[in-house]
Amino acid sequence: MHAPGDVRIEDRPDPTIVEPTDAVIRLSATCVCGSDLWPYRGVEAIEGATPMGHEYCGIVEEVGSAVTTIRPGQFVVGSFWASDNTCELCRAGYQSACVHRTLMGTIGTQATYARIPLADGTLVATPEVPSADLVPHFLAASDVLGTGWFAAVAAEVAPGKTVAVVGDGAVGLLGVLAARQLGAERIIAMSRHGDRQELALDFGATDIVTERGDEGVARIKDLTDGLGAHSVIEAVGTQESMTQALGACRPGGHVGFVGVTHEATLGGMDLFMSLAHLHGGPAPVRRFLPDHLRLIADGAIEPGKVFDLTLPLADVAEGYRAMDERRAIKTLLTV
Amino acid sequence: MHAPGDVRIEDRPDPTIVEPTDAVIRLSATCVCGSDLWPYRGVEAIEGATPMGHEYCGIVEEVGSAVTTIRPGQFVVGSFWASDNTCELCRAGYQSACVHRTLMGTIGTQATYARIPLADGTLVATPEVPSADLVPHFLAASDVLGTGWFAAVAAEVAPGKTVAVVGDGAVGLLGVLAARQLGAERIIAMSRHGDRQELALDFGATDIVTERGDEGVARIKDLTDGLGAHSVIEAVGTQESMTQALGACRPGGHVGFVGVTHEATLGGMDLFMSLAHLHGGPAPVRRFLPDHLRLIADGAIEPGKVFDLTLPLADVAEGYRAMDERRAIKTLLTV
Repeated sequence: MHAPGDVRIEDRPDPTIVEPTDAVIRLSATCVCGSDLWPYRGVEAIEGATPMGHEYCGIVEEVGSAVTTIRPGQFVVGSFWASDNTCELCRAGYQSACVHRTLMGTIGTQATYARIPLADGTLVATPEVPSADLVPHFLAASDVLGTGWFAAVAAEVAPGKTVAVVGDGAVGLLGVLAARQLGAERIIAMSRHGDRQELALDFGATDIVTERGDEGVARIKDLTDGLGAHSVIEAVGTQESMTQALGACRPGGHVGFVGVTHEATLGGMDLFMSLAHLHGGPAPVRRFLPDHLRLIADGAIEPGKVFDLTLPLADVAEGYRAMDERRAIKTLLTV
Repeated sequence: MHAPGDVRIEDRPDPTIVEPTDAVIRLSATCVCGSDLWPYRGVEAIEGATPMGHEYCGIVEEVGSAVTTIRPGQFVVGSFWASDNTCELCRAGYQSACVHRTLMGTIGTQATYARIPLADGTLVATPEVPSADLVPHFLAASDVLGTGWFAAVAAEVAPGKTVAVVGDGAVGLLGVLAARQLGAERIIAMSRHGDRQELALDFGATDIVTERGDEGVARIKDLTDGLGAHSVIEAVGTQESMTQALGACRPGGHVGFVGVTHEATLGGMDLFMSLAHLHGGPAPVRRFLPDHLRLIADGAIEPGKVFDLTLPLADVAEGYRAMDERRAIKTLLTV
């Protein structure tokens, strides 16, 4: 990305092993993230030409001398945070706060090859190289699945509970899928777009609410005996969506938020009087990867359904445009 | 309270049973709350002469026709929220959000007698009328003990964890006591006042940090391998204290906040990047009352030690003044 709205495919030197803990992978596929739209729209600053992308899966080409568990030829998936998976925070399940974390977005995985730091900690290999039709699902596990899932876990989704999902992007939709997998009794997807509503229902939503803001909150209260949802997944990150999520949550309930809250602020008294639990942030996707890869290999979940536009990497600019203009939920880029 | 800084003792008609679910109690003692200082200092508006006080224990004088479990002659303690203890939110442990809740502060318990709504749900009776020396401890259970305890529970205090406590008022100090009872390994009290440090150590603090703000956060990090505390109790409610609490918490850790956050706001990105869990609000003291009354009767805890000034109710104005000027942690008023 050279500037807001200016994405180009360019030839750059192939990545090489820099640290002995690195691996280099050949991407099987990559994609555009909703958060890539922040700099694309000029909300987040970029300084000059910047490699983009932080979602990836692919075949290991080469590993550094200190890598012991990952081998060339394996199909691997990693998170958008590289992490050692051994520090105290990783062991507590917060690999996105690893004391040695590296943000993959600074490396850029909208590419043919990528260097992956801390390969042993970051990457999870599948038992065998999967068939091509499974690749989109594995790719989704690199970020959006784990992020939606983390939101659901942070919102303490569990059997018997009613869950409201604010946001119908890829993460919100996969929050619906996660809530279904975690046994929620009722899943209310908040969406006003027909195609996204359909996917939400396919992923396990039981109700659709089209209203937003105060009206949306009132609708959620109507559906929950006036109390609000037990669990609310926030997957947007705007002031409106955070306010809506907090308002839709019952006292003692849980809000899991994963939208990148650039401009939102929370009033202390609103938070205080809500009596909600609040947890979120950059998802520790690595925590969930082993389970997710298994569920995908078994065909139990199909998170790759969020990709509704597939383009060759060369057409990455159109991939951004389609998402920016909301013509696509999420763009998969074939490599 | 007639106006900020203007507290007077006045004769008013004795309270009577209004609803069949009411009780009338004769106060054994009452007290001044840190939150009573908000209107005293003019931060919270009052309209004309307002009865004050929401902490109470005493002997039941009379009950309404629908009251079935509470009887005249019993010694009872209740929370600052009257609650039915039967609605879905009460049963979930959030009696401070009871669908029928009434704020006792609107009734006023800095008085000789008080009407208690929803007596069966609100009041908890002790097996026998306690001796006078236990009354301060039972009185503390009406608010500050349960509030500090809720903060510790909201902060997920548990064996093996390090807890930081922001705020050395009665609630913060009882947060220390709660953290000790809940098995915390290390309890860091943040205080710069000798008498409060002493009480914190008496209640179970293992470390004292005198620094505040960024320096206080840096000190907590120093004491926790650079990671921050597992659990942070916030018991002040200012912008500085909330920022300090969030900063002192490790990623994946828990902040329990019970300071009334009138003017504080939380930046979305600060919250997002902290990866902390946040829970707080008006404490559901009623949840903890049965256990707390037992612990007090058994002499296992002595929360009434937070009362370092005892005055007759007639001197209530001096009780406020002493707390406002920080000459007293908390004023007990004998009735």
